[in-house]
Amino acid sequence: MHDTLTIALDAMGGDHGIQTVMPGADLALVRNPDIHLLIYGDEVAIAAELEKYPRVKAAATIIHTDVAIAMDAQPSQALRQGRKTSSMWQAIDAVKKNEANAAVSAGNTGALMAMAKVILKSAPNVGRPAIAVIWPTTRGESIVLDVGANMGPDAKQLVSFAVMGRAMSRVIFGLPEPTIGLLNIGQEEIKGLDEVKQAAQMLRESAMPIAYYGFVEGNDIGAGTVDVVVTEGFSGNIALKTAEGTANQITQYLKLAMRRSLMARIGYFFAKGAFNALREKLDPRAANGGVFLGLNGIVVKSHGGTDAKGFASAIDLAINMAREDLVAKITTDLEAYYTASDDLPEQKVSIS
Amino acid sequence: MHDTLTIALDAMGGDHGIQTVMPGADLALVRNPDIHLLIYGDEVAIAAELEKYPRVKAAATIIHTDVAIAMDAQPSQALRQGRKTSSMWQAIDAVKKNEANAAVSAGNTGALMAMAKVILKSAPNVGRPAIAVIWPTTRGESIVLDVGANMGPDAKQLVSFAVMGRAMSRVIFGLPEPTIGLLNIGQEEIKGLDEVKQAAQMLRESAMPIAYYGFVEGNDIGAGTVDVVVTEGFSGNIALKTAEGTANQITQYLKLAMRRSLMARIGYFFAKGAFNALREKLDPRAANGGVFLGLNGIVVKSHGGTDAKGFASAIDLAINMAREDLVAKITTDLEAYYTASDDLPEQKVSIS
Repeated sequence: MHDTLTIALDAMGGDHGIQTVMPGADLALVRNPDIHLLIYGDEVAIAAELEKYPRVKAAATIIHTDVAIAMDAQPSQALRQGRKTSSMWQAIDAVKKNEANAAVSAGNTGALMAMAKVILKSAPNVGRPAIAVIWPTTRGESIVLDVGANMGPDAKQLVSFAVMGRAMSRVIFGLPEPTIGLLNIGQEEIKGLDEVKQAAQMLRESAMPIAYYGFVEGNDIGAGTVDVVVTEGFSGNIALKTAEGTANQITQYLKLAMRRSLMARIGYFFAKGAFNALREKLDPRAANGGVFLGLNGIVVKSHGGTDAKGFASAIDLAINMAREDLVAKITTDLEAYYTASDDLPEQKVSIS
Repeated sequence: MHDTLTIALDAMGGDHGIQTVMPGADLALVRNPDIHLLIYGDEVAIAAELEKYPRVKAAATIIHTDVAIAMDAQPSQALRQGRKTSSMWQAIDAVKKNEANAAVSAGNTGALMAMAKVILKSAPNVGRPAIAVIWPTTRGESIVLDVGANMGPDAKQLVSFAVMGRAMSRVIFGLPEPTIGLLNIGQEEIKGLDEVKQAAQMLRESAMPIAYYGFVEGNDIGAGTVDVVVTEGFSGNIALKTAEGTANQITQYLKLAMRRSLMARIGYFFAKGAFNALREKLDPRAANGGVFLGLNGIVVKSHGGTDAKGFASAIDLAINMAREDLVAKITTDLEAYYTASDDLPEQKVSIS
């Protein structure tokens, strides 16, 4: 299996389902012609669409599934209705059965995480899995986790997120020793939540080499102050959505400003190329995909509302991590962290 | 006292102290010629600066203080060193003694909040005070609280923040019934932290008329989905700083894009007016100032790094709230809320 990578796709997820998954797979195949695809979903609908994409047809095996998980399904409901029978379940299950190296779905996050946990289970030494995203910054790109899998701070969790985010950063960006920051509401050591301060102490005293930077604040994320920003899922999700909202807001201001006068419209005409470059920079599709970290297998969640380009980015991300065997690296790193840390009684950690 | 409003200014706070406070006071007096100022700080330094601002000289009483609270002082340290003797303490104390209707300081937030709590004490039915900010949105402006006074969610706290934010919105924006949203990580009723869900239930079942909208997400803040966004201080602070960071990031992208080619530079020349309008829209100085809500008196915290224009906005905000007697309105509203809610055993609330 490891010579040619196989990626399992849930064709029924996302706002546009097959209409996005097929052209997305096509784009991903242009960039990665040597991969094999397992596509799960309604075979009649897929077959009709497949005629338009001969490249996908040649590289894919279609597996019919009867059930599609609704975008607004509750996780418990999705588990009841979609267990074994749904495209989402089967795509993840292909990873569990070693038939695929990673699964990609644009389906609803709660259902996808719930199924991924049931099927793949948490990796050793991981309390709970996290969702990591790649965040564009003024200095490049950083990894931010958790953006919504777990709520409420827990020092041990935050430390395992740091170790997982570090492994992902090494794999995705090839950084030998990425810097790690803990998201907090002030840079001073005495500020912030107790659990965050406790995690800071554990990271500072880590026997494993971790480039722990210290606390960072919300504005440090976009500034790219550190390579990996670690936080619990409630504030991480709020940070992510607030950044999206602010970007939308400014884009809207900009559009209005450029329409307001004849001079501005002339200016826009000349600066069009520059505006397009800006749009590209702000394009959420370029870095589309949340990665589930801490499971015994790779699952990438694509944005539900994305288009072919965005879905292709999510597939790229899955390929990248599967090729570098991120799951094995995380397991090794976490084991190394806890083995080393066991010698230091002050920060001895038990993972529940 | 209530015919002419008196505002107490801490002249020693902020990154630039007197250099910002004096021209800021001057600007505020242009817009509000009928106010009186009490200016606390080093009288020699103030006197020298006062010669440049005859308007301020005519409208102000200068009170000499020996101690200035450092911008990086810990709250406990500030309380020890600055008790009674500092410009910050005395400006707040003027509100307590009814010599001023409100106090404004650009000094450090932690020290200011610690002193304000000691001097003014929490208002009746308020568990803990909150910091509220005015957030520019695509629809206008919203109020967001708490942005950093209290950490960790607590249902009763969130409800009192909602009542206080509502009162502030009515006073500042004159909205008869502002809509209230609870910041959460999903709009579905089953998602999110238990304390946030509990607060939602209390607000939904409130006997007092509250236009409770439901849960909102990070992107709803900038979209202006609701008039008042309620959250606990950790995530509120992270949202605020993340939005600032994203705005900085996009401004930087835009500058780079506009410099990249000759065409873009020509475009910028024509669109300059539009760009200036955009800059104005994004100007953090226009809505500068965090308001401490829930104390027996009005304290406005100006951004430490602001300039005269920003400090003047903070004074404007203080005047606005003092004129409308926001403190009395909050007290009345909270009393009404809890009196009405006492009849409903399910949501009976005790404030510690």
